Amino acid sequence: MVQQAHSSQLKEQLVNMLESRKDEMIQIRRHLHQHPELSFKEEKTAQFIADFYKGKDVEVQTHVGNGYGIIVTIKGGKPGKTIGLRADFDALPIQEEVDVPFKSQNEGVMHACGHDGHTAYMLVLADCLIQLKEEVSGTIKIIHQHAEETPPGGAKSIVESGVLDDLDAVFGTHLFPTHPAGTIGYRSGYAMAGRTYFKMKIQGRGGHGSSPQNANDPIVAGAHFITAVQTVVSRRLNPFEMGVVTIGSFDGKGSFNIIKDSIEIEGDVRYMNDKTQQLIDREIHRIVSGIELQFDVACDLVYTADYPPLRNDEAVTEEVVAILKKAADSDIKEVVEYPVFSGSEDFAYYLEKTPGLFFNIGCKPKGREEVFFNHHPKFDIDEDALLVAAKAVAYVVCDYGRSN
Amino acid sequence: MVQQAHSSQLKEQLVNMLESRKDEMIQIRRHLHQHPELSFKEEKTAQFIADFYKGKDVEVQTHVGNGYGIIVTIKGGKPGKTIGLRADFDALPIQEEVDVPFKSQNEGVMHACGHDGHTAYMLVLADCLIQLKEEVSGTIKIIHQHAEETPPGGAKSIVESGVLDDLDAVFGTHLFPTHPAGTIGYRSGYAMAGRTYFKMKIQGRGGHGSSPQNANDPIVAGAHFITAVQTVVSRRLNPFEMGVVTIGSFDGKGSFNIIKDSIEIEGDVRYMNDKTQQLIDREIHRIVSGIELQFDVACDLVYTADYPPLRNDEAVTEEVVAILKKAADSDIKEVVEYPVFSGSEDFAYYLEKTPGLFFNIGCKPKGREEVFFNHHPKFDIDEDALLVAAKAVAYVVCDYGRSN
Amino acid sequence: MVQQAHSSQLKEQLVNMLESRKDEMIQIRRHLHQHPELSFKEEKTAQFIADFYKGKDVEVQTHVGNGYGIIVTIKGGKPGKTIGLRADFDALPIQEEVDVPFKSQNEGVMHACGHDGHTAYMLVLADCLIQLKEEVSGTIKIIHQHAEETPPGGAKSIVESGVLDDLDAVFGTHLFPTHPAGTIGYRSGYAMAGRTYFKMKIQGRGGHGSSPQNANDPIVAGAHFITAVQTVVSRRLNPFEMGVVTIGSFDGKGSFNIIKDSIEIEGDVRYMNDKTQQLIDREIHRIVSGIELQFDVACDLVYTADYPPLRNDEAVTEEVVAILKKAADSDIKEVVEYPVFSGSEDFAYYLEKTPGLFFNIGCKPKGREEVFFNHHPKFDIDEDALLVAAKAVAYVVCDYGRSN
Amino acid sequence: MVQQAHSSQLKEQLVNMLESRKDEMIQIRRHLHQHPELSFKEEKTAQFIADFYKGKDVEVQTHVGNGYGIIVTIKGGKPGKTIGLRADFDALPIQEEVDVPFKSQNEGVMHACGHDGHTAYMLVLADCLIQLKEEVSGTIKIIHQHAEETPPGGAKSIVESGVLDDLDAVFGTHLFPTHPAGTIGYRSGYAMAGRTYFKMKIQGRGGHGSSPQNANDPIVAGAHFITAVQTVVSRRLNPFEMGVVTIGSFDGKGSFNIIKDSIEIEGDVRYMNDKTQQLIDREIHRIVSGIELQFDVACDLVYTADYPPLRNDEAVTEEVVAILKKAADSDIKEVVEYPVFSGSEDFAYYLEKTPGLFFNIGCKPKGREEVFFNHHPKFDIDEDALLVAAKAVAYVVCDYGRSN
Repeated sequence: MVQQAHSSQLKEQLVNMLESRKDEMIQIRRHLHQHPELSFKEEKTAQFIADFYKGKDVEVQTHVGNGYGIIVTIKGGKPGKTIGLRADFDALPIQEEVDVPFKSQNEGVMHACGHDGHTAYMLVLADCLIQLKEEVSGTIKIIHQHAEETPPGGAKSIVESGVLDDLDAVFGTHLFPTHPAGTIGYRSGYAMAGRTYFKMKIQGRGGHGSSPQNANDPIVAGAHFITAVQTVVSRRLNPFEMGVVTIGSFDGKGSFNIIKDSIEIEGDVRYMNDKTQQLIDREIHRIVSGIELQFDVACDLVYTADYPPLRNDEAVTEEVVAILKKAADSDIKEVVEYPVFSGSEDFAYYLEKTPGLFFNIGCKPKGREEVFFNHHPKFDIDEDALLVAAKAVAYVVCDYGRSN
Repeated sequence: MVQQAHSSQLKEQLVNMLESRKDEMIQIRRHLHQHPELSFKEEKTAQFIADFYKGKDVEVQTHVGNGYGIIVTIKGGKPGKTIGLRADFDALPIQEEVDVPFKSQNEGVMHACGHDGHTAYMLVLADCLIQLKEEVSGTIKIIHQHAEETPPGGAKSIVESGVLDDLDAVFGTHLFPTHPAGTIGYRSGYAMAGRTYFKMKIQGRGGHGSSPQNANDPIVAGAHFITAVQTVVSRRLNPFEMGVVTIGSFDGKGSFNIIKDSIEIEGDVRYMNDKTQQLIDREIHRIVSGIELQFDVACDLVYTADYPPLRNDEAVTEEVVAILKKAADSDIKEVVEYPVFSGSEDFAYYLEKTPGLFFNIGCKPKGREEVFFNHHPKFDIDEDALLVAAKAVAYVVCDYGRSN
Repeated sequence: MVQQAHSSQLKEQLVNMLESRKDEMIQIRRHLHQHPELSFKEEKTAQFIADFYKGKDVEVQTHVGNGYGIIVTIKGGKPGKTIGLRADFDALPIQEEVDVPFKSQNEGVMHACGHDGHTAYMLVLADCLIQLKEEVSGTIKIIHQHAEETPPGGAKSIVESGVLDDLDAVFGTHLFPTHPAGTIGYRSGYAMAGRTYFKMKIQGRGGHGSSPQNANDPIVAGAHFITAVQTVVSRRLNPFEMGVVTIGSFDGKGSFNIIKDSIEIEGDVRYMNDKTQQLIDREIHRIVSGIELQFDVACDLVYTADYPPLRNDEAVTEEVVAILKKAADSDIKEVVEYPVFSGSEDFAYYLEKTPGLFFNIGCKPKGREEVFFNHHPKFDIDEDALLVAAKAVAYVVCDYGRSN
Repeated sequence: MVQQAHSSQLKEQLVNMLESRKDEMIQIRRHLHQHPELSFKEEKTAQFIADFYKGKDVEVQTHVGNGYGIIVTIKGGKPGKTIGLRADFDALPIQEEVDVPFKSQNEGVMHACGHDGHTAYMLVLADCLIQLKEEVSGTIKIIHQHAEETPPGGAKSIVESGVLDDLDAVFGTHLFPTHPAGTIGYRSGYAMAGRTYFKMKIQGRGGHGSSPQNANDPIVAGAHFITAVQTVVSRRLNPFEMGVVTIGSFDGKGSFNIIKDSIEIEGDVRYMNDKTQQLIDREIHRIVSGIELQFDVACDLVYTADYPPLRNDEAVTEEVVAILKKAADSDIKEVVEYPVFSGSEDFAYYLEKTPGLFFNIGCKPKGREEVFFNHHPKFDIDEDALLVAAKAVAYVVCDYGRSN
C-alpha cells in the first residue's frame, strides 16, 4: 500500500513535468528532423544525445553494440524491477517531400519513420526520471538505439553485448499514422513479421543466343526458380499462417542476343513465428538445390534471417493495457487492439530475451485525409503524439510490476 | 561380263514371273487383311506363312526371336552376297472403317499399316526366287517379321538370335499412301526417328485439399516437371537437330478436394541420331532428379529407348536408286527423295548391324483425294503397289552388289 | 425475475429427463450407425425420424428442401424467441473399419462424421421438449437435415424454403474427436472455411506425339495453368488471410505417344470470408482466360461456390459461452476456444440468414491415444458425448435470449 | 565461242593482276584494321574508300542508303549481265586482344569480323576491273556497305534506294576461320538464320515486398512468360525446322524487399525460313497477350524482324561451285559444302531481291590449333585468304552467266 502511494506520487510529478516540457520535446524532434543520419552513420545524432546527458547524474555508455548505441542507466532510489525503454535514432535514404521549416538538411536522407520523435520524447522523459530518481523504484535503462532500419540492425548487438542482461521487462513505442494523436495501439503475442533476406547468384554458362545448346541459360533457370518458389506459400504453408516470399530483384540485364553467364536474384521472406521461418527456410533451400540439379547450374545462395517475428508478451501486454486504461489521462484517448503487421522491427531481439511490449502511438496529422505511411517521402506526424508517447511510457515505468 | 549376263537373264525371268502372279499377291493380301492379328499374337498368320512354304525346296526356321518370326533361306546356285529381305506381318488394335468385301473379320483388329501387302508380295517373290534359285547369286534370307508395331518389336530379337549374322545387306519396304502406285521413295542417311518411351510415377503424400501443408501435392510437382521438360528441346537441343519430348499421358484423376498420393506420367521422345537420344536421355533424367529434390517427391522413372533412328546406308542407297532408275520398268514410274519422317520403325535394328535400305512404295488409292495415313481406320491401298514392291525388290536382289 | 425462475425450473426438469434417457440416445445412435445412408438417399433414416415423432403432439414437416429434410416445430407454452436446432443425418461413402457390434450393415457406407450421434441426441432432446412444452418459452424448430456431406447440401434449400424465416437464432453442434467427452469447443466469428468447387475442361487438339506442330497439347496448357494458379495464394492474397487453391484431379490419362484432345481438371478453393472468395474467384477466372489466349485452347470452366465460410455471431457466441460456463454441469467439464478450421459445413447457410452458433462436442474415445478424425474409416466416438451435447443445447434453449 | 575466249583472256589478266597486288590488299587491310569504326559511324573508312577511287574512270555514289554506303559502277566494254559484289566495312564494339603491329588504335573498337579484309580485297579487285573494263562483259556494281553489324543494317536501305534494281546477280563473301586459307565454303538454299529482336516492358504495380496483395509483381509475370515461351520451340515448331527463342536480358534489378513497378525483357529469335518466322511471331504475340490477361499486367512489346533468313539461289550456287572447281587455281584448294549456320547477315536482303550467293573464305591462321570465331577479341585471319577471296570473286565475275 505504501509503495502504491509512492507510485502515485511519482506518477503525478512525472506527468506534470512531461506536460510542462512538451515544447522541448517538439524542439528536439525538429532539430533531429533537420539533421537525419543513415543507419550505422549516426555520428552527430549520437553526439547530440550524449551531449544531452552531459553533466547529469547518470551513467552513460556510448558505442554500445555494433555502432553508436547509447545506454543510460537511471538507478532509482527505491527497490524495484529493472526496465528497459528503447528509442531508435537512425533515418532513411529518402528525399523528403514534406514542406516544413525544419525540413531535412541532408540531401536524400530523411527521418521518414518517426525515430526523431521517438528520441525526442525519450530524452525529455529520461531527464525527468533522472530528476525524480530518488522516487523511482528499480532501475531504468534508456536504450538509445542506432541502426534500426538496416539489417543486421543495432538491437541484436546491444542484446549480445550483455548490458541488458539484467532487464526484467523492455518497452518500446512506434509512431504510426493510421490513428490520430491520443490513440495507443497494442497487440498481444506475435504482432510484427520476422524477415529473411536472401540473395542468389545463378551461374550458368554464357553463349550466343542463336546457339542455346552451347550455353546454359541462367535466365530460364531463374524463371523456373520463381515459378517454383510460389509453391512454398501456396502449398507448404498452413493456410492459416502468414508467410510471404517476394523476389524483389532479378538482375539479368544483358544483350538481347547473348545468353548470360549468370544472373542474381534477391528476395524477402516474412513470417509471424519461428516455425514458419524454419519451414520457408527449408523449402527455399530445397527448391534451390532442385533448380541446381534440374538446370545444371550453380546457385550461390546467401540466406540470412535478420529480424525475428516480434512477439509481445501476453501477460505484460495485458498489464500495460490495464495501466494505460486505468491512467484516465485526457491525452490518452483510446487504447485499441491493432491488427498484425507484416513489417519488421529489430525490437523483436529485445523481446526474444526479455518479456515486454512494443506498442504504437497514433500520430496522424490533424486535418489530413490521406495517410502517408512510414517510409513515404511525405510521412509526417502530429507532434502532440510526442507527449502521448512520453506519458504512456511514464505510466508504464511507474506502474508496471508495482501492483503485483 | 558373264555375271552381268546371268543377272540380266534372271532379272527378266523373275520380273516376268512376278507380273504373271500379280493376282496371287492380291489374293494373299486380301486373305491376310481379313484375318489380322495383333503384335506377338500372330499365330495363324505365321502358320499361313509356314504353310505357304510347305513342300518347297527351302530352309524354313519358325519361332525366331521373341515371337512368331520366320526366316526362309534361299541358297542361290551361284556365288554372291547374302541379302536379307524383310516383310512384317502384324496388325493393329484399330476397328476397320474401310468398306471392302475382304474387311477385317477380327473385331477391333486391322491391317491398317500395310503389313498384309508387305507379306503378300514377299511370299510370291520368295516363291519365284526358290523356283529360280539355281540362277540366283548368293543367298537370300526372307525375314517374315512379327510384332513391328509394339515395342520391343520383333526385329531386335531376330537380330540378336544370330540368324542374320551373315548378311551383307538388308532391305525392306513400306507401303505409304502419299504417292500413287509406281512411285518409290527413298532417303539416304537418317530417315526415320528413333523413339524412347518413358513412364514416371511421382509419389507425393495424399491429404485433404483444404490442408496442403499436411500433404505433398504430386500434381503440382508433375506440372512443374512438364513446364521444365520443355526446356530440353527449347534450350538444350541444337536447333538444327530434330528432337521431340511429348507427355502423352498425365494420369492424375482424383477427387476435387483430395490431394492425391501419386500420379503417373507417360511420355514419348523422338530423335534422328544417337547423340540427340543421349542428350535428351541425360536431360530428362537430370530434370527428374531436380523435381524430386525440389518438391520432396519420389519419382520412379522407367526410361526405355526402343526403336533407334533408322539410318539408310548412303552407299547402298545410292546404288539402289541407280538400280531402280536404270531398270526402266514401266511399273516403276518415279524414284523420288522423301523427306525425313518423325515416325519410327524397328527395321532400324537391322540397319544398325548391316548396311541396307528401307524404302517406300507409293500406294495411294486411285481416284481418291483425301489421304488416310497408315494407322488410320480408313487406311487403304492401291493393290497395284504390290507388284511395284515385288519388282523393286527383285531388281535389288538381282543387281545389288553384282555390278561391283 | 419470474421468467428467470421458470427458466431454471424447466432447465432442471429437462436436464434430469436427458440424464435419465442417456441410454436411449445411445441405442438410437447405434441403430442409425448400423443403417447409414448416403446424402440425398436417406430414405429410411428420414422414415425412422418421422416414425419417432408419430403420435407426438407436435407439427412435423417432411421432404423439406431438396431432399428428406424434416422440420419439427415445438411451440412453447410461454412467449419467447424462435430458435432453430439443427442435426444432420446423412452418412459417407466410406467402408467402416471400426470393429463394433453395431458396425455399418451397408457396404461402403458409414456414419464416419458423427451425424448418427447428432440425430440421436436431438431426437431425445426434442421429445423431452415436447413433453415439457408448456414450460418452454418461445418456439423451438428442430431441423433434421439431410445431405450435409454433398454439395449443394440440404441446408441451403431448407433456408430457401422459407420454413426458417421466423428464426431468431440457430444452433448446431458437431462431434469432434480432438477432445474428450465433456469438452465443448467454440469459436467466435469466422470459424470454418467456405468452399468452391471448380471443374475445367481444356480443349486442345489431338495428334501424334512425334508431330506436336500438328496438334495443340492440352497437358502442357494444363501444367501452365497449375503453375500459374499458385500465384493466386502466393501473390494475390493478403498473407494474413486464409485461402487455398487445390487441384485435386488432373484427368489426362492417355497413350504415351498420342497428344490428347482434351483434359479435365478439378479443384477446390477454401477461404474464411467473402472478400477472399471474390478475390480468388476473380483471379482464377483471369488466369483461365489468360491460359486460353496463351495456348490457343478453349477452357470450359464450371466454378461453383458451394458452402460459404461459417461465421458464428460474436454476441451469440459470447452469450452461449457464458450460459455453458454458468451451467456448472458436471458433464460439461470445459468450454474452450477452438482454432479456425479449414473444413466446410453447410450450417454456414443458416448463419448467413440468422445469428447463431455452431459449436463442437468433444468425443475422443476413452483410453485411445491416436485420433482418427471425422471421415476416417476408423472414426469412433465416446458415446458419453451424446448426453453432453444434449445438455449443452438444452441449456442454450432454456437460457439463450432469456436473460436479456 | 568468241565470248568464251574473251572471258578466258580477261580472267587470265585479272588473276595475274590480283596475284601481283596481293601485298597491297594486305596493306589496305592492315590500315583498316588499325582504324576500325562502329556501324553507322564509319565516316573515315568511307572517306578512305572514296579516296581510293578518286581519279579513277568510274562512277562513285556515296552516302547510299541509311549511312556511308558507296556504290561503284564499272561499266564493261562488252555486253553482259549486271552483277553486284558486296564488301562490308564496319567494325565491332570489342576491345582487341590480338597482339599485332597493326592492332586497333580505337579503344574498344575492333575489326573482329573480317570486314577489313572484305573491303581490302574488293578495292584491289575493283581497281583491276576498272583497268580492264574494256574487256569486262556487262556491268559490275561494287557495293561498299556500311553497318552490317547493327540492325537495321545498311543492306536493306541500299536495296530500297533502288540503285541495285538492275542487278542480275549478287555475290558476297565472308572470312570464316574454321578452315584454312584456300578453302571455299558454300551452302545452297537457306544457309543462315533470320533474326527478330524483341523488347517487352511488363508494367505491374510496385509495392512493399511484405504486402504482395497491394502490388502486382512484374517479376513473377516475367518468369511465367519465360517458362511459357519455351513451348513455342518445344510444341509449336515442326521438330524438323530450326527455330530459337532466347531471352538475353531480364532487366529486373531492384531492392530485395520492394516489388518492382515494371521490368524489361529483351529477346532474340532465329529461324531458317519465313514460315517459321511467322509462326514464332504469332505465338510470341499470343503468349504475351495471354500473360497480360493472366497477370493483369500491361505488356509493351516491340517486335522487329530484322535480317531475314539468308537463302542462296540453288541454280546460282550450282553454277558458282562449278566455276570455282573448274578454275583449277592452286590458291583455291578446296570447295566444300558448309553446314547451315544460326548466325544472321544482312546480305540476306540482297538475296531477297536478286539471285546470288554468299560464300565463305577460309582464313584460319597457319599453325594455330584453337579457333577464335568472328566477334571474338582474339579473332585473327591468315592474310593469304584475301587473294583467295579476290580470285574466287574474279572467276565468278568472268564466268558467271557467260557460259549459258
